[in-house]
Amino acid sequence: MIAVLAGGVGAARFLAGLVEVVAPSSVVAVVNTGDDTRLHGLHISPDLDTVTYTLAGEHNAELGWGLAGETWTVMAALERLGAPTWFRLGDRDLATHLYRTGRLAEGAPLSTVTAEIARAFGVEVRLLPMSDDPVRTRLELADGPEVEFQEYFVRLRHAVAVRSVRFAGAEEARPAPGVLEALEEADAVVIAPSNPVVSIGPILALEPVSAVLARRRACVVAISPIVAGAALKGPAARLLAELTGDSSAEAVARRYSAVAGAFVLDERDAALAGRVGALGLRPVVAETVMGAPGVAAGLARAALDAVGVATSR
Amino acid sequence: MIAVLAGGVGAARFLAGLVEVVAPSSVVAVVNTGDDTRLHGLHISPDLDTVTYTLAGEHNAELGWGLAGETWTVMAALERLGAPTWFRLGDRDLATHLYRTGRLAEGAPLSTVTAEIARAFGVEVRLLPMSDDPVRTRLELADGPEVEFQEYFVRLRHAVAVRSVRFAGAEEARPAPGVLEALEEADAVVIAPSNPVVSIGPILALEPVSAVLARRRACVVAISPIVAGAALKGPAARLLAELTGDSSAEAVARRYSAVAGAFVLDERDAALAGRVGALGLRPVVAETVMGAPGVAAGLARAALDAVGVATSR
Repeated sequence: MIAVLAGGVGAARFLAGLVEVVAPSSVVAVVNTGDDTRLHGLHISPDLDTVTYTLAGEHNAELGWGLAGETWTVMAALERLGAPTWFRLGDRDLATHLYRTGRLAEGAPLSTVTAEIARAFGVEVRLLPMSDDPVRTRLELADGPEVEFQEYFVRLRHAVAVRSVRFAGAEEARPAPGVLEALEEADAVVIAPSNPVVSIGPILALEPVSAVLARRRACVVAISPIVAGAALKGPAARLLAELTGDSSAEAVARRYSAVAGAFVLDERDAALAGRVGALGLRPVVAETVMGAPGVAAGLARAALDAVGVATSR
Repeated sequence: MIAVLAGGVGAARFLAGLVEVVAPSSVVAVVNTGDDTRLHGLHISPDLDTVTYTLAGEHNAELGWGLAGETWTVMAALERLGAPTWFRLGDRDLATHLYRTGRLAEGAPLSTVTAEIARAFGVEVRLLPMSDDPVRTRLELADGPEVEFQEYFVRLRHAVAVRSVRFAGAEEARPAPGVLEALEEADAVVIAPSNPVVSIGPILALEPVSAVLARRRACVVAISPIVAGAALKGPAARLLAELTGDSSAEAVARRYSAVAGAFVLDERDAALAGRVGALGLRPVVAETVMGAPGVAAGLARAALDAVGVATSR
């Protein structure tokens, strides 16, 4: 069994490659919920949805979020009502949020609802929210106020400087049922190429999760989302630079050095392998830019190989 | 100023006629919220929406509820997720519920949100929910369980016998801001041709509302929703028969005798005028079936005339 710590798009692409080389039913994804938000009274879990839609093959590749073939009737009607519409919700996507919100209101935990949605989408990978309890990523902007993640990411288009990041609720939140068991029993744990600060950060902020990974460090491999000092998508490089002064893949490796024993670097960063090794992580160089077909599967194979797990296909 | 106690479709049609004979801005509608429900985490106010959509000229005349030109993309996606879909929600209609739920979650009272939605739809009539506090109509079925209104009305299609009706929360609920003032100051108060048990019943269950109407009884005129022992739509006749043994217009007049001084009967029930008079209500006979153009306006004129209010046009 393979466990994967996952954020949004990068993790979803990696998981889609992983299930080409191992059986989908042997994969457990532990997904960030620090980005979760409430909008129009709805509980929205962007990373869970991105992973679900991608593994179902129904993600909107042009937009980079939401569902393929989406329509926008409800959004247009909300605009007319004067509701805030900076967070775009497609009609089909909305059904997911309505279903989730309704089930949560009935008392079902997020992990149960997540499994129900995954099943309806025909997703065989076992998807677990990192926690059934609320953890909310909050960013203190350099010029003052603290904002919630979606405000930073979507409304402000992450084009503002950040002074600090915290994960409200992380201290009290318990890992969702199945999370610690999966991390304990996995043959390999992969930290997907997601934003180390705001996607993987909230998961590692759960102390029992960090503790089990630190103990099983030899089985944990992290994949750099940074290639040649830049992120393919999103604010990973900018946030790393603002918070640590370094936006290289080495900065990512440093962040993971307590919980991962191996680290996959992009070929363009091969020169950093020695410095990663010096941090105590076994460096592995691979193609990490999952644009062309086959790259994600190859990356999954390389990552598993780095912790001694052979792939079946 | 004219105040109207309103349920759903019948009241909405009456109001559309009323604004042909008096200025819309001089009309205050006090609308039943006993039918309000939560579905998929959304706060749904069916009677407020029916009145809003109808006065905006955007109601779906074929369906008898919802918006004209509606689409059903979200519903289809919800069906796929296995969500209960017996309560149909169109895409545009959903935006109203999302807006309302979002604003209520922000702490806005229902009366404020109702005014915002009415303004966005260009409705000039002042729409007031009967209360900002929750009142929920619950029906005890003859064969056992107690169900909430929408379960009875939509899911069971009101094709089941009812033993009793109650309005949970009515004792603690306060009339919404503006309701008592409107009823105090109105030149006439019209009880619209809505279901007397489950549409007008919840409004009258607010003790301060009944009290002011009883005091101002001479200015209050009720319109029978029953024509020749049957309701044009919905379970009014059946409920009256089950709860009182009588489903005639006279049974409606009896229900309103403490709060109304005049009563509009349909022409087909002209023979009951004497019995209505004997109950202490001044009977007025008029065409009440608001199918053909002009009937609703004529009915509004007749109702206002019954309490001595001349119409301006």
